[in-house]
Amino acid sequence: MRYCFLLQVRPDRLDEYRQRHRAVWPDMLAALRDAGWRNYSLHLRDDGLLVGHVECDDLAAAQAAMAATDVNARWQAEMAPFFTGLSGRGPDESFLVLDEVFHLETQLELIA
Amino acid sequence: MRYCFLLQVRPDRLDEYRQRHRAVWPDMLAALRDAGWRNYSLHLRDDGLLVGHVECDDLAAAQAAMAATDVNARWQAEMAPFFTGLSGRGPDESFLVLDEVFHLETQLELIA
Repeated sequence: MRYCFLLQVRPDRLDEYRQRHRAVWPDMLAALRDAGWRNYSLHLRDDGLLVGHVECDDLAAAQAAMAATDVNARWQAEMAPFFTGLSGRGPDESFLVLDEVFHLETQLELIA
Repeated sequence: MRYCFLLQVRPDRLDEYRQRHRAVWPDMLAALRDAGWRNYSLHLRDDGLLVGHVECDDLAAAQAAMAATDVNARWQAEMAPFFTGLSGRGPDESFLVLDEVFHLETQLELIA
């Protein structure tokens, strides 16, 4: 399954957000991999709109697996000040998940 | 390469937009595949923000390859009324392409 989610980075901290993501902690990368996050990317609009895209068997399960790690708690605590609209939750608990309305290969398979 | 782009669907036409994308024309699907569009998905927010993700060697080349097909001209002409902010161009010429700021596997390879 492919999932797309949105978050909002503070416009005045975009450069630092980018910088922090150029070299994410190796233990955070390994934890994501081990929790089943695949082909995980983040894209940023100039005003701070952040688009996440991840492939996993089940997003809720992949989020729960990350939430069970110490490194995730440390990473999310460091990242929280970069975001707006978190309402007291962590960035990883504040995803707005969008509906998938099209996937090329899925439809190609249907007509094959 | 992974690319993420945004478009804006008219909020009053979301249901019809979704419906039209449940079964895209087979010759449009084949044209996308043949033009090098891979793992291409569209996700939609309730207000009409549309997020596209596509993997291809070069987005400009993949767009040009599609633009050279008759089926793309027909498809884009049918889709144009669903969008806002096109400024007289086609939906496929109006992408706002976002910067990638993170990709899990790329960083895992760097530390391997």
